[in-house]
Amino acid sequence: MADTLAEPHLGLASWLAERRRSHVFEVARIPLSDLVGWGFDALTGNLVHDSGKFFAVEGVHVRSDYGPVPEWWQPIIRQPEFGILGILVKRVHGAVYCLLQAKPEPGNVNVLQLSPTVQATRSNYTRVHRGDGTRYLDYFVRPQRGRVLIDVLQSEQGVWFYRKRNRNMIVEVGEDVEAQEDFLWLPLEEVWRLLKLDNLVNMDARSVLSCLPLALPDWLGDGEGACDGFARTVRDSFIGDGPSCVPTERLLNWFTEVKAGYHTSVRPIPLAEVKGWHRTEYEISHEEGKFFSVLAVDVRASGREVSHWTQPLIAPRGEGVAAFVAKRVGGVLHVLAQARVEPGFVDVVELAPTVLCNPANYRDMPRTDWPPFLDYVLAAGPERIRYSALLSEEGGRFHCAQTRYLLVEAGDDEELDLPPNFQWMTLRQLTSLLRHSHYLNVQARSLLACLNSVLV
Amino acid sequence: MADTLAEPHLGLASWLAERRRSHVFEVARIPLSDLVGWGFDALTGNLVHDSGKFFAVEGVHVRSDYGPVPEWWQPIIRQPEFGILGILVKRVHGAVYCLLQAKPEPGNVNVLQLSPTVQATRSNYTRVHRGDGTRYLDYFVRPQRGRVLIDVLQSEQGVWFYRKRNRNMIVEVGEDVEAQEDFLWLPLEEVWRLLKLDNLVNMDARSVLSCLPLALPDWLGDGEGACDGFARTVRDSFIGDGPSCVPTERLLNWFTEVKAGYHTSVRPIPLAEVKGWHRTEYEISHEEGKFFSVLAVDVRASGREVSHWTQPLIAPRGEGVAAFVAKRVGGVLHVLAQARVEPGFVDVVELAPTVLCNPANYRDMPRTDWPPFLDYVLAAGPERIRYSALLSEEGGRFHCAQTRYLLVEAGDDEELDLPPNFQWMTLRQLTSLLRHSHYLNVQARSLLACLNSVLV
Repeated sequence: MADTLAEPHLGLASWLAERRRSHVFEVARIPLSDLVGWGFDALTGNLVHDSGKFFAVEGVHVRSDYGPVPEWWQPIIRQPEFGILGILVKRVHGAVYCLLQAKPEPGNVNVLQLSPTVQATRSNYTRVHRGDGTRYLDYFVRPQRGRVLIDVLQSEQGVWFYRKRNRNMIVEVGEDVEAQEDFLWLPLEEVWRLLKLDNLVNMDARSVLSCLPLALPDWLGDGEGACDGFARTVRDSFIGDGPSCVPTERLLNWFTEVKAGYHTSVRPIPLAEVKGWHRTEYEISHEEGKFFSVLAVDVRASGREVSHWTQPLIAPRGEGVAAFVAKRVGGVLHVLAQARVEPGFVDVVELAPTVLCNPANYRDMPRTDWPPFLDYVLAAGPERIRYSALLSEEGGRFHCAQTRYLLVEAGDDEELDLPPNFQWMTLRQLTSLLRHSHYLNVQARSLLACLNSVLV
Repeated sequence: MADTLAEPHLGLASWLAERRRSHVFEVARIPLSDLVGWGFDALTGNLVHDSGKFFAVEGVHVRSDYGPVPEWWQPIIRQPEFGILGILVKRVHGAVYCLLQAKPEPGNVNVLQLSPTVQATRSNYTRVHRGDGTRYLDYFVRPQRGRVLIDVLQSEQGVWFYRKRNRNMIVEVGEDVEAQEDFLWLPLEEVWRLLKLDNLVNMDARSVLSCLPLALPDWLGDGEGACDGFARTVRDSFIGDGPSCVPTERLLNWFTEVKAGYHTSVRPIPLAEVKGWHRTEYEISHEEGKFFSVLAVDVRASGREVSHWTQPLIAPRGEGVAAFVAKRVGGVLHVLAQARVEPGFVDVVELAPTVLCNPANYRDMPRTDWPPFLDYVLAAGPERIRYSALLSEEGGRFHCAQTRYLLVEAGDDEELDLPPNFQWMTLRQLTSLLRHSHYLNVQARSLLACLNSVLV
């Protein structure tokens, strides 16, 4: 799929190129001790900002009967504030447009990606009266300026963040809203198309876009003709006209059952008490070189505003894989979701793609200890891969964190053996859960957004 | 309303009287040190069972910008397991029947009340293979024996429990299921009627019953004729045919906004570090004699099985008040919900009745520090009170914890000044949120169940 589309349309390509020229970031790794305004707390060893704001790197001790490892310690980012990730949408002659922003972030492999209209921490949006204005924020904090279609707290990576959540918002405006510098009104179809490209639409934008079908039930338009065989099964799965192989009441029963079945205890601890991790001059890393490290960068941004700062980032080891295994049932695409424990989830278990891991962490382990379906997904031939793109996780906190997002189709008559925490569901069933917190993790939301690209 | 119904129908009354005779409980307060199998941990001061099971009384330190008290310490019950509260339902010639149990609990003022078909802790239901059988449990853990219509984790009192939740389940059976000793199939209409009586339908049953409209969308039957003026507005509010004054998307926006707006930190601490509370021979209590105390009881149960045990209970000071203020908008009843912080909620904020407190805690405080609408509700004349009953909180953990549940109707043209964390909603809007966790607290669910009684 991805290779059928070479480049975004020329206007967009040249606009992006122009934006890239105007946001030059120099990002250099520095020793942890060269962080300015950041330091390790003498008592806890936590890595904190002098102001007590932004975020902190602390520790967590986990016991869980999910997965092969019953107990572990790890560093984790604590950022208790709720930020806003919001996209403005408008309709022009029936077509839907989204206002996206070309936004540079220090952790992105390519610096600049497309982000939501607003990406603001709570400190940003509560001091709005001081006038140091996040642009377009008014539409999200003073809803009378538009119509709030979606506003829901959603989790972010529960393996790296302790209970971090952001408000995912979609606001529809009737009035004309001008696209300021760095901003662009893009037709929704174009946005879906851009999701086929590597490292272009950022994680926050994908997360918000996944909610769009709830905000605009007619988001697919009436493009009947455009749908070929496979796209048709995706479309029917989103729209929900076809049958689902598992009724929603049974889905919720399964999810509650699985959630109630796991015993997981997550205890915040000082970073100094995290076992199996070591601090060197340049990073905090695991003794086996696995999982991720905490490192420090120096950022010099030139362009419209010149600025300079240092900050810690989380750098995962190697590329992640996030894959839905899918199959057609009665002509309707069903994806295989897993109920997954991540220590940073507020409610401990959320739905994730069939496979979600960093394969490098398992290379030295016997295959029996690999996560279910990892070898199945890695071995899938190109004829089975219906979507594939390399996408970035949040570039404000993660250093070059790239994940291979995949949709792998199983044969109609292939019988897959499902562990109890796996369940088939339609895209409509998944989407309907997005209206509420604590259901879909950030990678499941990303993939859900990406699957729209199959339709354009 | 309550006084129009003197007694449940005679068959039920005599059955209940018979059950009461067969379950005689002698409950006596004992010194804390006379607890058998329970003790205070030497290091933490926590009150724990020797087996490490059941529950523990620990401590919590809270800081919050909700309410007039910015910081406090308190004992709290920790019971991390998910139990099952389940009701079996069946249809006979179109009418719905529920299987309820006459169940004695040591904390109940009248010992025996009507409980769900199954009220089982996780230890109960995972050792089911050992055959020490909670009756009817099979229908809830092996769903193929019936159809699971509802299965959702719901919170319990967040002021007394740290993150306690239970699975609220409704399972419909097609086959004939015999009512064993202590069990009775009751027509749904009769159950609603019983909710007008004091201390008869227990908290767990009320919580599960609140979900019934989701399980059986035709739960009201077609009893068109039965509805007079006020009942009609309640019915229309449940069914949702009439307009709602706040669209659901705005409701969810408001809830997310309020939730994101509070800063609350809840830190579990050892019971020994709880400030302002003291342990005497007979209880752990607050230095001002407010809130609640932790006490110990000796229970001798005679009847079918003779048994004897001791346990701690939480004893609130005085009677609670849980009241929805309601008004008619366009002929449809709207109730005023508040987004409320309770330290034991997993997600910190849930929707509660307009007023939820123990008035005794405020007697010595200026009215300006009273919770909003408390004086409004206490001053309401009888013509405004559309529902009133004195109902018990969980008798397995709470000692004589009674709450006055009220529905107080405001005049159509009365303008109430709403704090930002209050919102009008229809009964259908409230009910629809019950399908998911983290929305309605246990008293809101209780009241929602009780409001069905206005219709019979």
